Parts: sequence; C-alpha cells; structure tokens
Amino acid sequence: MPTAPIKEYADSDGRYGRVQTRFVEFDGITLESGIYLGPLTVAYETYGELSPAKDNAVLILHALSGDAHAAGIDEKGRLGWWDAMIGPGKGIDTDKYFVICSNCLAGCKGTTGPPSINPATGKPYGRSFPLVTIGDMVNVQAMLVERLGIEKLLCVIGGSMGGMKALDWAVRYPDRVRSSVVIAATARLSPQGIAFDWVGRNAIYSDPVRVEPAGDSGGGAERAGRGLAVARMIGHITYLSEETMEAKFGRKRRLTDVNGYRYSLGENGGGGGEFEVESYLEHQGSSFMQRFDEDSYIIITKAIDYFDMEWSYGTLSAAFRNILAKMLVISFSSDWLYPTSMSLAIVRALQAEKKDVSFVELDLPYGHDSFLVNAGMPPLTRIIRGFLGRVSEGD
Amino acid sequence: MPTAPIKEYADSDGRYGRVQTRFVEFDGITLESGIYLGPLTVAYETYGELSPAKDNAVLILHALSGDAHAAGIDEKGRLGWWDAMIGPGKGIDTDKYFVICSNCLAGCKGTTGPPSINPATGKPYGRSFPLVTIGDMVNVQAMLVERLGIEKLLCVIGGSMGGMKALDWAVRYPDRVRSSVVIAATARLSPQGIAFDWVGRNAIYSDPVRVEPAGDSGGGAERAGRGLAVARMIGHITYLSEETMEAKFGRKRRLTDVNGYRYSLGENGGGGGEFEVESYLEHQGSSFMQRFDEDSYIIITKAIDYFDMEWSYGTLSAAFRNILAKMLVISFSSDWLYPTSMSLAIVRALQAEKKDVSFVELDLPYGHDSFLVNAGMPPLTRIIRGFLGRVSEGD
Repeated sequence: MPTAPIKEYADSDGRYGRVQTRFVEFDGITLESGIYLGPLTVAYETYGELSPAKDNAVLILHALSGDAHAAGIDEKGRLGWWDAMIGPGKGIDTDKYFVICSNCLAGCKGTTGPPSINPATGKPYGRSFPLVTIGDMVNVQAMLVERLGIEKLLCVIGGSMGGMKALDWAVRYPDRVRSSVVIAATARLSPQGIAFDWVGRNAIYSDPVRVEPAGDSGGGAERAGRGLAVARMIGHITYLSEETMEAKFGRKRRLTDVNGYRYSLGENGGGGGEFEVESYLEHQGSSFMQRFDEDSYIIITKAIDYFDMEWSYGTLSAAFRNILAKMLVISFSSDWLYPTSMSLAIVRALQAEKKDVSFVELDLPYGHDSFLVNAGMPPLTRIIRGFLGRVSEGD
Repeated sequence: MPTAPIKEYADSDGRYGRVQTRFVEFDGITLESGIYLGPLTVAYETYGELSPAKDNAVLILHALSGDAHAAGIDEKGRLGWWDAMIGPGKGIDTDKYFVICSNCLAGCKGTTGPPSINPATGKPYGRSFPLVTIGDMVNVQAMLVERLGIEKLLCVIGGSMGGMKALDWAVRYPDRVRSSVVIAATARLSPQGIAFDWVGRNAIYSDPVRVEPAGDSGGGAERAGRGLAVARMIGHITYLSEETMEAKFGRKRRLTDVNGYRYSLGENGGGGGEFEVESYLEHQGSSFMQRFDEDSYIIITKAIDYFDMEWSYGTLSAAFRNILAKMLVISFSSDWLYPTSMSLAIVRALQAEKKDVSFVELDLPYGHDSFLVNAGMPPLTRIIRGFLGRVSEGD
C-alpha cells in the first residue's frame, strides 16, 4: 500500500502549494447497528513526511461540517479548515509530523455518505443511508490508518465532534494511539444538544424540497431547500458566545427606515435581514446550503446524539479503564454548548482511573468555535505544540 | 362605558366558574411606524371587582404565546395560563384586586392581528399585517384601560415579553401606573435573542405551506405548516434550563431497538422522536401549531426584536427618568435567555435615577419559564403578594 512520503503540500519557502485529496477503497464495514455498508471510499489528505520509523503521524478529526481538507490550498484555491493550526512551524508542525485528515463516514466530501451511489439501487443513498455512530467513524479511520501502514499514531486531535472522536480513538484503540487531544467536547451529548439537533433536522424535514424518507434523494447540495440553512443557523447560534455576538453585532442594523427601523419583513418574506446578526446567520445558512448535503447533516447529527460513553460502557471510569494514551483535554470558558463542566467530567473520570491527563480551560470569549477562529490560535497553538513535543520526546 | 363589577368568575366556594372573553372596539390607532391601523378590536377578561374608588386594578401582561384568558376556566373548559397566580387568595388575590388581561395587538386570540379581516381587502391581513412594537401593544392596552374607566392602575405585571410591557407601561404612562412588576425580562433584546427569533421566522418561511409575503394568508392555524412547530421548538429550548432538561429528560429514550438505539430516523422522516426530549419538543411544537397563527408569531417576535429602551431614549437612565411607579424586578438564576444580568441593568439604571425599585433573583432551576411552571409559584406568590400589599397600602 502507498506509504511513500508526500511532499507536494509545501513549496521551498515553506509556503503551501496545491494539496490534493486522495481516496482509498475498502470492501466495506459492519456498522455498530449490525448493518453491513460497502463498498467504502475514504477521502483523505496528508501533510508533512512520515518518518522512517512511522512514529510521527498525527490524525486530525474534523467537526460536523468539516472535511479532509484541513490545511494548505486545494485545487480550487480553498484554504484548509484548520490551516491556521497545521503547517510548517505551526501548532501542529508539518516539519516534524506527518499529518492525516480524512472526511468522516456519512460525510459528503468524498468519503462514503448519503450522496454516494448505493450499489443496490444504482442511485444515491440519500436519507436511506444507514445511521452511523462516532465509533463507526473511528473504525473507518482506523482502517485508513492501517492502510497507510501506520501501526501507532503519535496523536489524535479534534474539536467538537472531532473531540468525541479523539476520545473514542483512545478508548477503542488503546494500543494504536500514543496521545489524544480532546477539544471543546463531551463524553455524552446533553439533552439540550439532542434538542438543538432535533430541531435542526426538523427544519430540514419541513422545507419545501423535502426528500421522501424512502431515500433516493438525488444527492448533492443543489437540491437542498432552505431547511438546511435554518438548521445551520441554529447551529451557529450555539457555536458563538453571547459575548461575541454582542461584540461582533450588538443590535446594529444594516437597513433602517422609519425612526431607524424598517417596519418591514423585507423582500421574500424576510430574506436579507434587518439586524446585522440576522445577515450573518443568513450568510452562514445560505453558503452552507451550497456546500453541504442535507442528508449528511441529518445522519451526522444523529451520530452525535448517540454519543454517550457512560451509557455505552456503563460508567465513564469503565470506558476509560484501558486507555494508554496521554490525554489532553481543552475547554473554552465561553463555550455554552459543550461547557467546561463536560470536559471536567472527562478529566475526573480519567484521574479516577489514574490516567496521564492534562486539562486546560482557555479563557476565550469566542464560544464553542474558539478552536476554529483565528483569535483562538495563539493560546491553542502554544498548548498543542508543547503537548506534542512532550509526547514525541517521551516513552 | 361598562365598568360594572363582573362577578361570574368565581362561585361561592371561591372556585372558578366560567369566565368569558369580552371585546371592545376602537376606531383605530396610529402605530409607531406611522401606519394607521383600524378598526381595532381588543379581547380581554377581568376577574374580581373594581373598587368604588377604582384604585385596585391590576393589569396582567402576557408573553409571546399568551392570550386574554389568564385565569379561571373558559367556555371550552380551559384553565387560564396564569391561573396558579390569579384568583381568590392567590398571589394576585381577586378578593382584593380587579384583574384585567387583554390579548396583545397582533395576537391571534381575539385582538386585532394577522388573522383579522383587513377592511381594505375583505380578507385576513396575514403576513401583510403592519409591524408593531411593544409600545404599540401598550398604547392599545392604555386605550382599553381608559375605556374601562380606570385612570390609574394599581399595578402592571408580566413576565418575558409581558415584562417588557410592564417596563414600557411605567415609562410611557408614568401618571397611570402606581407600580410595575417586571419578571424575567430585559430592557433591550440581545443579539442572541434576535438571532433565535430570526431562525424561528425562517423556519416558518421555509415550510411547505409558506404564505406569499403579499399577504392574504387565509388566517387561522389550520393552514400553518411544520415551520411554526420548528420555530416553537427552538423557543422551548431557550425557555428551559439545561438543568431542567437533564432532570426532566436526560438521555432517556422512548423507543429502542439494536443495542438500545433504534438506528432509524423513524416514520415520516423522524416524526415522533427517539429521545424523550425530542418527543417533548415534538408535542410542544405540534400542539402550538394547532393553537397559534404563524403570522402572529412572525409579527410578535419582530416586535420583541425591536424592543430596546436604550436606543429609543438614548440611555436607560433617560428612559427611566420620568417613572413614578414603584418597581419590582424579578429574575431567575437559571434563565439563560433573559439572564439576571439583564434585570440588573434595569435595576441599576432605576437606582441611578433614584427610583423606588426592589430586585429579587429567585434561585429556581426551571429557566426562563420559571414564572409559568407550578413549582415556581410558591416563591413568586410570596413576593408578588407582599409587593401588591405594600403598594395598595402605601401612597
């Protein structure tokens, strides 16, 4: 299998050249539901060089709307979603580490998911795609890592849903992970999280281009209606802190009329938005509609809903008992979706099992999204760089 | 004008008999937008007897989804929305006070609103109903109170949007209000509040039975699509605290299949819900769809968005300068929609203007809805009863 060093991601000045998403094929996988799904394609990218000892591989785990393109500039000129963190001399230094990122199972960016063709029908799976779990996503990544010839990862690292996967990796494959960085995550989605996801899915169900649940949705974002935009807007409210909303938008208005208000719902029943925060959400929702598949959104949010290590293993302590990895747990003070208390539940259970765990609460005002915004990068870079250094020098 | 005592609300044992919603008609009103709206109907109920001096009237101000039926049992057998607070011997004691509650302007329960017939077209206004403000709602209530022959109210009292109205009453009609109780409210809707309302309206816009913005929506809840249910579900997440969600629902499931999960989106693309919190929201959304008008929802949430006393008067101090009423501000420790900090902003500005203000933060776990749930009644009853007693004995 191809494990040759890949060098095309950076030019001689240490700047990125073009990176390319690659694909590997597998026969299939038996999901936690018992359903067999195959064939299976996994989309991934790599940055940096795999060491001869194959001991410098870092696996990046993306959140709900992420993809394999984590760093560099792709063929369409788009910067990777965590490019601020991954690259030569950056927090995850590609001069030192071989970095892998793959699109998750049920995604819509190259890995098998609802837009993929169901071989049984010759048409896209659509909403008939089998429900998957965070564990299924991790199992598929483990197949990829094995295919790349890597027996043991130096680190798995991710935020939000990516943090769930980082935790699941350490639990599920204790012998194959030397360290794990769990950012802005939880070991158990709260009922409030389930509630937001439920409402988002219902916004999709109730949109004008609703796809019949029998499947055969046609795949691709062009058919998605406004429901997906509404779901994404709900998400964005939960990703930002109230403090950031005040600072970024306050009650500023784009359009005014009588006494500073428009007194109009606007064209198209309100499209566009009067307040700046409305326009922000509108933009986020509309652009998401153009780039994401609504059925992937449904299946992935359901996987997040199912994530509950307490329930799966009886207790968190039982879940963590076999962990061998050094653990780093990071939370953000202003994250109200996955607040610090949820990170602390993970940390305390790890401590009770006498695991090697570090914990940092970063006092940042940007809410759940703090691990993605540029202003969050300096402190996060410092912490992650230090942790990776200690792990690669240790044991 | 009819100001005769109305006694039909309670029987000789102090239990409620039937209460009836009454209606008064006005030529019309010039809205803050400058638009003239007429004719105007106001639906209201009263409980208790107006004293000969007409000095014992308490005006109840309802929240987003409330109506005139605040107490007693109506002709359809339904209990009023704040019956736990209003009645003989209760927090707002109808043996002592003459209690009035009216459906707000733009509502859908008898007062002129989107389901009403637009005399210019002979059809319901629908989404072409003019946008209104909290101030417009208060002005219409002031017309009702005048029609009832009451020069000065003993108290205005309300929670959430009702709290905004209670504050607006004290500011707008200083000579006509002896006291005001502002519960779980804010003087200025936050951008997060605007954001949730925007997403709720967009869920309505994107539903399959979307009404053309030109108006003529047909009126009545039977035409409303799932969008209104989605909007309501978003609202309900914000009304509950995470603590209550954990205690009430946790991650309990109604339906299980493989390994305790269903691994199915369920019939009708997810209808019904797997987790109990999903079923709760589904029930709230579906029943709301049956009883509320989607265009009223749109117009009223927009009025809430516009509420900003700082902006309307320059500063909060300027807004409060002419207040004569004794003020009582109440917040709930677990309310994250209108948190205590927002109540404190009101209190501090009142204090800076040397107004007579009392403030209580109630340590209740039920979130924004604490003023409506039964478990919140004992402490709220104690505080409101005491305050009304002091006001009616004073000056």
